Amino acid sequence: MEIVTGGAGFIAQTLIRRLLEEGQDVLALDNLVRGSLDYLKPFEAHPAFAFRNVDCSDKAALSDAVRSIDLGPGPHHIWHLAANSDIGAGNADMTIDLRDTFLTTVASVELAQAIGAARFHFASTSAIYGDHQGRGLAEDDGPLEPISNYGAMKLASEATIRAAVERFLPKADIFRFPNVVGLPATHGAMMDFVLKLKRDPSRLDVLGDGRQQKPYLHVTELVDAMLFISRTAQDRYNVFNIGPKDDGALVSFMAKTVRDIVSPGADIVFGEGDRGWVGDVPRVSFKIDRLTGLGWTPTMSSEQAVVRAAGEIASALGAA
Amino acid sequence: MEIVTGGAGFIAQTLIRRLLEEGQDVLALDNLVRGSLDYLKPFEAHPAFAFRNVDCSDKAALSDAVRSIDLGPGPHHIWHLAANSDIGAGNADMTIDLRDTFLTTVASVELAQAIGAARFHFASTSAIYGDHQGRGLAEDDGPLEPISNYGAMKLASEATIRAAVERFLPKADIFRFPNVVGLPATHGAMMDFVLKLKRDPSRLDVLGDGRQQKPYLHVTELVDAMLFISRTAQDRYNVFNIGPKDDGALVSFMAKTVRDIVSPGADIVFGEGDRGWVGDVPRVSFKIDRLTGLGWTPTMSSEQAVVRAAGEIASALGAA
Repeated sequence: MEIVTGGAGFIAQTLIRRLLEEGQDVLALDNLVRGSLDYLKPFEAHPAFAFRNVDCSDKAALSDAVRSIDLGPGPHHIWHLAANSDIGAGNADMTIDLRDTFLTTVASVELAQAIGAARFHFASTSAIYGDHQGRGLAEDDGPLEPISNYGAMKLASEATIRAAVERFLPKADIFRFPNVVGLPATHGAMMDFVLKLKRDPSRLDVLGDGRQQKPYLHVTELVDAMLFISRTAQDRYNVFNIGPKDDGALVSFMAKTVRDIVSPGADIVFGEGDRGWVGDVPRVSFKIDRLTGLGWTPTMSSEQAVVRAAGEIASALGAA
Repeated sequence: MEIVTGGAGFIAQTLIRRLLEEGQDVLALDNLVRGSLDYLKPFEAHPAFAFRNVDCSDKAALSDAVRSIDLGPGPHHIWHLAANSDIGAGNADMTIDLRDTFLTTVASVELAQAIGAARFHFASTSAIYGDHQGRGLAEDDGPLEPISNYGAMKLASEATIRAAVERFLPKADIFRFPNVVGLPATHGAMMDFVLKLKRDPSRLDVLGDGRQQKPYLHVTELVDAMLFISRTAQDRYNVFNIGPKDDGALVSFMAKTVRDIVSPGADIVFGEGDRGWVGDVPRVSFKIDRLTGLGWTPTMSSEQAVVRAAGEIASALGAA
């Protein structure tokens, strides 16, 4: 059984589609606070798909939810995607990332032990590195100094999984995500831009001066890389940066791309400073040499991913 | 006010003595599960000393305990020492380090915010690095791959504190401890050896083959380094390895040292393998160049620290 926490969230929709296409049984788990059953509509009639509404940070509830399903003979794989996705909210109230980003990991690791999971896949993030002023970061580089509670609780999760590999877990894959764009539109700067332009077609206000540069990957490529790593990496503990080959696209490029699709006549009004919010890393750059060395290479650049996703999101939100 | 979590524990006794000698007001907080009021006897009549029995992982209880004291005008400094100290127990039940090593940090950071603490001092550990086969590790080195829940929850704590510096904390010092020896004897291999020889003066069983090599520091030197760093390091976020200048002493050296003091005729019987328990890092070596560069150098070698502490512990336990 492929068990997906945060199963009604952004990344999960593409992952579940791929897993079902490959003939796997899938159990999606989500408390529907940030996720939505709408994202699971394409699968609800699929005989190999099941969903349970459960708070994945609640160890006992998670265990009960999984035990309500016939998991079959295995092997069982956990895809732990559940997390807070609102970095600003998590900085204002640290209990949010503690519960939704970290305690979901603790409960998922305990679930892995209880069901004898063969493999644990984890959605980590470039935010665990912190602000390295755009220095290209490889997986073994330090120091690791996350500047948001979100990044801190993702690093805490990695550490917990690493210790679990020492204790009982046969294999774990850590995927360090870049900024990911695509459908369904659930959160993030691109969706914000589309919604702002729907409200006021004459003007797009951007947090920060637009010069923040970040690597973007389209969600279809991200999931492709996750599946590739999960089947190819052979160590017991595998850590991979996943991202584009370039150093990223500027926020100003994203703003112009969305503006040109949604409301070509709008003025773009930039704010001040190089950070959109506390915990925002202005320049992110990380190396994917380990991933390309394993044999997977992205096909889209950051800008291409932004352009494609902007079209998809504008269309989905009825703004194109 | 100097607020010390884990205030009735091993390191705290020496820290509190030094702080009181320097004329500071001290509030010790401890749930007395692993700590003991015995260790605080030397201070109980001191007018600048106060103690509260409280579970430091319980945010509300911690807040209440601190509010029951007149903290004075400040500045307030938090010395966060509370943690699980039984690594094996923490690996058998991950809720132990989750609560005692990590949630104590979360509650202490929230306390720092609530009282406007000027500085946060944290007892971290070489265990956050994981097993690097004796490669000398500097503070900025990666990867960080703790192999015990204890190490994982210490790394989670560092990450939480780093994010707090971004959010509100004026200054934080992270002290990465080596193995620390000295009085009061609360836990650890040296105390185990003394107690085993008291039970059976003819034989000392040692976990592992005795070839594990670890840096040891005497608790008096550790606390001296902590105070030095707290007054000298000027960055908002300061991370320092604290340890001896050498690569450590062998467990076999510690066993012979204790045997020669407690029961010179005893046979030492080594086990098999290079790990005493799951999560035991067989060879630990880390660099203290940053600390010596700041101006502090240990006076004792690892072996000297072991010899001094063995005499102290054997004497305190009535075994010398």
